[in-house]
Amino acid sequence: MSDRASGDDSMIIVMSSDASDHDVAHVVERLRGIGAEAHISRGQTRTVIGAIGERAQIQQLPWEAFPGVERAVPVLKPYKFVSRDHHSDDTIVDVGGVPIGGRYLTVIAGPCAVESREQLFAAAMAVHSAGANILRGDVFKPRTSPYTFQGLGEKGLELLAEARQQFGMPFHAEVVDPRDVELVSSYADMIRIGARNMANFALLAEAGRQDKPVMLKRGLTATIEEWLNAAEYIYKEGNHQIVLCERGIRTFETQTRNTLDISAVPVVRALSHLPVIVDPSHSGGRRNLVAPLARAAVGVGAHGLLIDVHPSPETALVDGPQAILPVEFAALMDEVRAVAAALGLDLPPGRPR
Amino acid sequence: MSDRASGDDSMIIVMSSDASDHDVAHVVERLRGIGAEAHISRGQTRTVIGAIGERAQIQQLPWEAFPGVERAVPVLKPYKFVSRDHHSDDTIVDVGGVPIGGRYLTVIAGPCAVESREQLFAAAMAVHSAGANILRGDVFKPRTSPYTFQGLGEKGLELLAEARQQFGMPFHAEVVDPRDVELVSSYADMIRIGARNMANFALLAEAGRQDKPVMLKRGLTATIEEWLNAAEYIYKEGNHQIVLCERGIRTFETQTRNTLDISAVPVVRALSHLPVIVDPSHSGGRRNLVAPLARAAVGVGAHGLLIDVHPSPETALVDGPQAILPVEFAALMDEVRAVAAALGLDLPPGRPR
Amino acid sequence: MSDRASGDDSMIIVMSSDASDHDVAHVVERLRGIGAEAHISRGQTRTVIGAIGERAQIQQLPWEAFPGVERAVPVLKPYKFVSRDHHSDDTIVDVGGVPIGGRYLTVIAGPCAVESREQLFAAAMAVHSAGANILRGDVFKPRTSPYTFQGLGEKGLELLAEARQQFGMPFHAEVVDPRDVELVSSYADMIRIGARNMANFALLAEAGRQDKPVMLKRGLTATIEEWLNAAEYIYKEGNHQIVLCERGIRTFETQTRNTLDISAVPVVRALSHLPVIVDPSHSGGRRNLVAPLARAAVGVGAHGLLIDVHPSPETALVDGPQAILPVEFAALMDEVRAVAAALGLDLPPGRPR
Amino acid sequence: MSDRASGDDSMIIVMSSDASDHDVAHVVERLRGIGAEAHISRGQTRTVIGAIGERAQIQQLPWEAFPGVERAVPVLKPYKFVSRDHHSDDTIVDVGGVPIGGRYLTVIAGPCAVESREQLFAAAMAVHSAGANILRGDVFKPRTSPYTFQGLGEKGLELLAEARQQFGMPFHAEVVDPRDVELVSSYADMIRIGARNMANFALLAEAGRQDKPVMLKRGLTATIEEWLNAAEYIYKEGNHQIVLCERGIRTFETQTRNTLDISAVPVVRALSHLPVIVDPSHSGGRRNLVAPLARAAVGVGAHGLLIDVHPSPETALVDGPQAILPVEFAALMDEVRAVAAALGLDLPPGRPR
Repeated sequence: MSDRASGDDSMIIVMSSDASDHDVAHVVERLRGIGAEAHISRGQTRTVIGAIGERAQIQQLPWEAFPGVERAVPVLKPYKFVSRDHHSDDTIVDVGGVPIGGRYLTVIAGPCAVESREQLFAAAMAVHSAGANILRGDVFKPRTSPYTFQGLGEKGLELLAEARQQFGMPFHAEVVDPRDVELVSSYADMIRIGARNMANFALLAEAGRQDKPVMLKRGLTATIEEWLNAAEYIYKEGNHQIVLCERGIRTFETQTRNTLDISAVPVVRALSHLPVIVDPSHSGGRRNLVAPLARAAVGVGAHGLLIDVHPSPETALVDGPQAILPVEFAALMDEVRAVAAALGLDLPPGRPR
Repeated sequence: MSDRASGDDSMIIVMSSDASDHDVAHVVERLRGIGAEAHISRGQTRTVIGAIGERAQIQQLPWEAFPGVERAVPVLKPYKFVSRDHHSDDTIVDVGGVPIGGRYLTVIAGPCAVESREQLFAAAMAVHSAGANILRGDVFKPRTSPYTFQGLGEKGLELLAEARQQFGMPFHAEVVDPRDVELVSSYADMIRIGARNMANFALLAEAGRQDKPVMLKRGLTATIEEWLNAAEYIYKEGNHQIVLCERGIRTFETQTRNTLDISAVPVVRALSHLPVIVDPSHSGGRRNLVAPLARAAVGVGAHGLLIDVHPSPETALVDGPQAILPVEFAALMDEVRAVAAALGLDLPPGRPR
Repeated sequence: MSDRASGDDSMIIVMSSDASDHDVAHVVERLRGIGAEAHISRGQTRTVIGAIGERAQIQQLPWEAFPGVERAVPVLKPYKFVSRDHHSDDTIVDVGGVPIGGRYLTVIAGPCAVESREQLFAAAMAVHSAGANILRGDVFKPRTSPYTFQGLGEKGLELLAEARQQFGMPFHAEVVDPRDVELVSSYADMIRIGARNMANFALLAEAGRQDKPVMLKRGLTATIEEWLNAAEYIYKEGNHQIVLCERGIRTFETQTRNTLDISAVPVVRALSHLPVIVDPSHSGGRRNLVAPLARAAVGVGAHGLLIDVHPSPETALVDGPQAILPVEFAALMDEVRAVAAALGLDLPPGRPR
Repeated sequence: MSDRASGDDSMIIVMSSDASDHDVAHVVERLRGIGAEAHISRGQTRTVIGAIGERAQIQQLPWEAFPGVERAVPVLKPYKFVSRDHHSDDTIVDVGGVPIGGRYLTVIAGPCAVESREQLFAAAMAVHSAGANILRGDVFKPRTSPYTFQGLGEKGLELLAEARQQFGMPFHAEVVDPRDVELVSSYADMIRIGARNMANFALLAEAGRQDKPVMLKRGLTATIEEWLNAAEYIYKEGNHQIVLCERGIRTFETQTRNTLDISAVPVVRALSHLPVIVDPSHSGGRRNLVAPLARAAVGVGAHGLLIDVHPSPETALVDGPQAILPVEFAALMDEVRAVAAALGLDLPPGRPR
């Protein structure tokens, strides 16, 4: 733990070319009023004020609302605890005995939604035998249209727990309502906050109060900074077991469902100590993109993969077009293992606890 | 009411150039299995199948997961009740006696967040005397950083109710947690679902069960179709009093906080019977853009405006850079009235109930 | 003319948290080597260096390539002559006797492409009688597909010159190849650089050497800063008669061809002295959006409008879906005049020279 | 060669819910007028017309300008010759004896701009000894600001030719003006059209008339379909030796210069027979992203890499922040070779002709 998080900060305040001396003095006075230092540099057309003091104090004031201020540029990031400045070593998250982070490459796979016992067990058997480490399967689905399948609820969690027992692999599932977080958390080895809820602060806070790891997917439109801010919400409530998951952002390109921002992986690894995985299924949205994007994710340095596998995609109630077949998953695992070995990465050891 | 909503639908299924006759037959068989008709057109390089049948049945099947299918293009929109196909006349929503919709131009103004009795009453007096129709003021704030002001909660609602009494204007406030919806709804004349929560389906469903109107802001990254789908969630729970609010989308341009999608207003007016207003404050994010964007919104045909006014923006705890001063708001109202008159629009009549 | 353009500048260089004293000294030494001053502020986790000196010198060095540098934030804009810092009054451009800029609202209308004498003259008569000030009509078309109509070339310019003679209105036309700029310039009253060529620097430079005004459309993906940089290219070659034209940017929304960035108008008016107009036809891409977007443009403060009018849109060889009919244009002009009058704007006086 | 390119096509025309029988008849009549067949499907709320006939004829008509037409959906792509439908095997392009395409992984490296003999030769020696196959080095630079270095011109080409001689590796360089294409083509083994010029059709046409291969970078804002259309422009002029290069698109994320659209590689490989490489330097814009993105590109299936290497990035006149050092390039080549071997790819054989 570092004390830097509560330490000093700085903000750079650029005055406009027509700012008066009075405008500059007003900013300086306000900075001093909150106990901050003000360093003034006068150029030929612009005056620049460097502010040093308490982060929370300085960032809270609406500097761009002050007369004569052209813009205010924060020097430090708005998040603290999830930053590498705060904790320089990689965090390794434990999901029911399976590690995510560091030099491990962890594979999470299964059906997008739990639809029935038969479907779940067929998928679980397939991903387990091909070498996946953690099972996925959702029981509450946030759907853009209210006229589509919304999930099995607690019944689905019971099936997942049964599959965990049978195949000896931990599972994780999505939460979409703050009122369901405790329920899902009582069954699952990791809970997930999906892309649509990344900025649902009530849900983040509830997840932050659980003692299970949280996977936090990046919002379709979230900047990396906003994503890390969302992780900070969870962290600050006391839950430090967070796995980030890149799953594509919204752009103008329509050939893919979303645009996988593969660069986000090394960017996040530089900014944060938290592990970051990639979801090649939801980003591309097409079955034939899953394997190439999974190989790219391993190449770029992701700590893991989250992959939709369905025993019969054309009967899937949710996201069928992107689910791959068990046989395709097994072939993908072979490629993933080859690339991981070439880069010196380890797949997590055999059986979880 | 039309019965078309539960009526037939069609999907166009384009087969890839290497699809086999068996692939085509498989799609046709599946369509017939759900009681739909299949019309086949064979071109030189592609076969196209037109499907006619029950919307819910056809749209639920993952056609793009079928072998040989290149893409599936829905002919009808995924939403029904909020569509002009369903209800051809403009809906006029009643907010505590003030109409929004049709030929009215309704102005909602006040501070972004309720900070104190003094701040709220100074703002309310100013917007009331300049001619605003409805007061805004939030008591729960979704903030991207956990280290900033989160709102006054119920105490703020009491202050808003007091301001309503004193100035004779209804008020509305945001909800961010499904567990708070009843509370806010018991005080406010309209509840609001903010941009970050547009796809928070638990919150949408809760709002759909209230007997107060709901303002639904467009998500930063939501397509117009997704926005209308979100409105459909509310509508289908039984609450038909919905006001849409365009507030800017996320693009590559950084000179403005978001890019106001002014074209969304006429597009929504063509697709839906619901009223649609514009928020020129949060879209631009800068005080000097509020008046031009408000005039643009009236010009384009918005049914109303949502404007941040703060008696002292540089002390604002939330979004100070975009709040305008009472004197600026009064000048803006003069311009708005002039443009509205030039276009034959009515400002809502004097005093609400 | 101000001498500030060649004056001093500043850059803010933020060092990373693990930068060494040697890294800081290296940056300072390099700044001094180019004759700049370096002001150092040391915070608890970051050192910030403020650089003051010659703009061109400081901006050319790749600061982010220096060891220990986290980022470099320029204080001044990269463009100079097109900035309001350089010239504070509005520039009014003269197009064959018709002014664009200041308090004028100038309407440019006609067919997207010149297709035939009949089509051009029917359109020109219609827009002239409805009150347009300048005729549009292109003879070289940049088309995304090589299999579509590419324009009439010089033959079209002759027809345009004939129409100018007959209706007494100046005309403008697009240039797409540096080798054609002189030709078009010898006929037209204003040349236009289209959105796809906004960053075609060879074309910009050629346009900058003509003695005719240039309309510079914003690229689909250009930031406002890049657009002003492109104008700077033209200006610096000696041609100061530049009209900017906002025509929509590319975003994720697909209901419209592009997203009209209406906020760009007040942003550009604050940053630059050049006039800025709006093209409501190409931004929306749909006939029923032209009138609402044109009214929005007048409301927001645009100096003019550029509108596609075609006597028979369904036979148009280019961009038929967005062209409006003469009768629709006449109705639109009535609305535009009403909004302009409400805002105190002038339409340019009757006959050009 | 297939004759399908000039074969039949189809367009799906969806009528709006309020289209009259007359509107439908009008569309059908027009289709028959151009020799096309019209297949009509009437649903409960919409009529859909399937059109089959000559591609050029059907795609040229502005269907969305017809009364009662809601939208027109093309079934075939607008490009023909660059499509896999036209040519099913991978094209392998020969660049001065070095292959790009198929199972080869080809590495192109060198300085962004040729600055001096010393700089070029130091870079060329470094990339050659580390195993690069083709040298890069530009002599005409399109810069967003007119105040920055614009390139050495023909002098630079002479230096490149000398380096080719000395190190026995072919080179390629960018063209930015149609008037310079023959000059560059007379020296270089491959010419390149940069991202800013992807839609500069005059330049594309000129490149299409050369007998040297062309590398076509994707525009920052270009969809994959527009990119393939641009390739079609070159192809149709007679030059079939085209290499596509993905280099990032513009999105809202600002942590990286652009967002590398890694998914574009498998999408292009499915749609086209042309080889597609990745530029990890310009997409990320930061030195520490080059190696991870290069590994991702190999993982995803790119046919090659284009990498900026500079002997002294902090003195680079262009794009210093993204250039890697020779020692970093050598380490990257080791990783690239390991991943390529794991996936069964070949690096091109030793010495070119």
